[in-house]
Amino acid sequence: MNIKITGTGSYIPTEVEKNEDFAHHQFFNGDGVQIEHSTDIIIEKFRRITGIEERRYASKQQNTSDLAFLSAQKAIENAKIDPETLDYIIVAHNFGDVSKDSSQADTVPSLASRVKHKLKIKNPYCVAYDLLFGCPGWIEGIIQAQSFIKGDMAKKCLVIGAETLSRVIDEHDRDSMIYSDGAGASILEITKSIGGILSTVSASHTLEESNFLFFGKTYNDKLKDDNRYIKMHGRKIYEFALNHVPNAMKVCIDKTGINIDDISKILIHQANEKMDEAIVKRFYNLYGKKVPEGIMPMSIKKLGNSSVATIPTLYDLILKEKIQDQRINQGDIILFASVGAGMNINAILYQH
Amino acid sequence: MNIKITGTGSYIPTEVEKNEDFAHHQFFNGDGVQIEHSTDIIIEKFRRITGIEERRYASKQQNTSDLAFLSAQKAIENAKIDPETLDYIIVAHNFGDVSKDSSQADTVPSLASRVKHKLKIKNPYCVAYDLLFGCPGWIEGIIQAQSFIKGDMAKKCLVIGAETLSRVIDEHDRDSMIYSDGAGASILEITKSIGGILSTVSASHTLEESNFLFFGKTYNDKLKDDNRYIKMHGRKIYEFALNHVPNAMKVCIDKTGINIDDISKILIHQANEKMDEAIVKRFYNLYGKKVPEGIMPMSIKKLGNSSVATIPTLYDLILKEKIQDQRINQGDIILFASVGAGMNINAILYQH
Repeated sequence: MNIKITGTGSYIPTEVEKNEDFAHHQFFNGDGVQIEHSTDIIIEKFRRITGIEERRYASKQQNTSDLAFLSAQKAIENAKIDPETLDYIIVAHNFGDVSKDSSQADTVPSLASRVKHKLKIKNPYCVAYDLLFGCPGWIEGIIQAQSFIKGDMAKKCLVIGAETLSRVIDEHDRDSMIYSDGAGASILEITKSIGGILSTVSASHTLEESNFLFFGKTYNDKLKDDNRYIKMHGRKIYEFALNHVPNAMKVCIDKTGINIDDISKILIHQANEKMDEAIVKRFYNLYGKKVPEGIMPMSIKKLGNSSVATIPTLYDLILKEKIQDQRINQGDIILFASVGAGMNINAILYQH
Repeated sequence: MNIKITGTGSYIPTEVEKNEDFAHHQFFNGDGVQIEHSTDIIIEKFRRITGIEERRYASKQQNTSDLAFLSAQKAIENAKIDPETLDYIIVAHNFGDVSKDSSQADTVPSLASRVKHKLKIKNPYCVAYDLLFGCPGWIEGIIQAQSFIKGDMAKKCLVIGAETLSRVIDEHDRDSMIYSDGAGASILEITKSIGGILSTVSASHTLEESNFLFFGKTYNDKLKDDNRYIKMHGRKIYEFALNHVPNAMKVCIDKTGINIDDISKILIHQANEKMDEAIVKRFYNLYGKKVPEGIMPMSIKKLGNSSVATIPTLYDLILKEKIQDQRINQGDIILFASVGAGMNINAILYQH
């Protein structure tokens, strides 16, 4: 029995926010002091490090659960399954539905319940729940779904990663330019065809790292604004990711007999281009190897960091041949890996 | 191999809110019209239906993750395990940490990450995640943990249900009197002793029911208040629960060879005394039986409805002999059952 992703879908919001759209922003440091450089210089430096040129924002009427639903519809269609045969709907996100005109999150009912409602699924034994595991939530959802399938609790699962980070950004924080909105969905099934999930690894580093990504006040302390926004200790995250993600990826591979040279693609959480390149370089260093050309497809340039949505979206785009010069063929071995709030890390070695 | 709860703990906030503390409230209906009866009459009617006389509120400094941590500490101590040997920490809640002075929820990092941080656990392979499944979240966490143990992904799991409903109540809504705060935790382990989890069932009813519990505006529409509060369509929930929960309980039992007469206790989500009594009555009716005396221990009178915390708290209190005339003995068969936002229903048949 193999467990494979038999269908994928993604929803990319249509509202494009370009780097130059931030030109009128006033950026402050965490200590409340305005950054001296001109905004143009700040934006250009940001682009060089993160690789991000533009990002997508959900339209005014859309919330995270709407994006999740739209991606789910496509995955179901792609897998050619009857949605009534789904045993689980798992929605990974970070903070629920936050409407454009509100700072308050809404998670009652769960986003998975909302998605199931929108999909008009009648079968009550299709269990719908939300999973909070930071950016690695979609991978973790796949790992949980695999467990349910292995344990004969499920045959078909829908796993979605969806986020609207645009709703929780501090416009006075340079890091606000990183964040994007989107949703990616996958159908996981038992199958008789070869491949599927070969191994997995998950970790939560919380002793010193639990607050590396957090909700905090605006950096512009002249404002009378008690709302909280998504904040990061960027330097700490960078060092943490470099110290731990390559090793977690290696742990995942070493559980199998797979040779590093047999890996066709690494689909890593799209958080920051330079960081992702450094992670993959250090990963190959662990094997005394150089990074193969084209091993790491990227979507960050045009799509930014949509948290839990980046990997399922990227995977879907490659399969639908929408990423230039990137293909995944039958039998290809792919390493999925993610890192994010928690701080959580996970990886899946997967044969397509 | 059996999978058993080897330790339990609960944290009951010390702040007691009595029914008479609501005497100065002005109550409105969902249509914004003030309720004609005097508050005393409203409160007395409320007490007769729900059985609730008082409830507990977290202190000003405490958030949901704090309550979760305090219950977890006790469960770990009770199970006599080294917390470093935990493979999973699963925290079931509904809307994250909502501070006393804020309406904004905080779920970054996840509450499970916060709990793990407070427990000072170093082991990165202790995976910490949050589960949103309405009031049935703690039972669902046990079901998920069982799946991880069965699938050899875990040996020991900590499952917590924690909630601070006092932070999201509309003081102009009679239903605000239902809600309470608290946390209950359990350690689930592989064991060689007899019993443990015998069967489980989970269901999500979302086609017409997804908005039966939701976040909405205050019923006092004279106020300029855009905050959203927890709201329920009480009558619809009552009918839904009566139509579906007894049957789900029966499905759970029918998966085993257990006779209804062999069930020692039914631990049901403490939402409303009259509703719980009606559910259990209808459940026994399905077997042509009358409800046995003392089968359903209750904590609602003094603890109200603390959502996902009610069942693990009640279970802990009985095991610690803190519920009058209620004991659970080795070998006793217990049926756990819950219903709540989603609308989700689940049950576990368990031998102590």
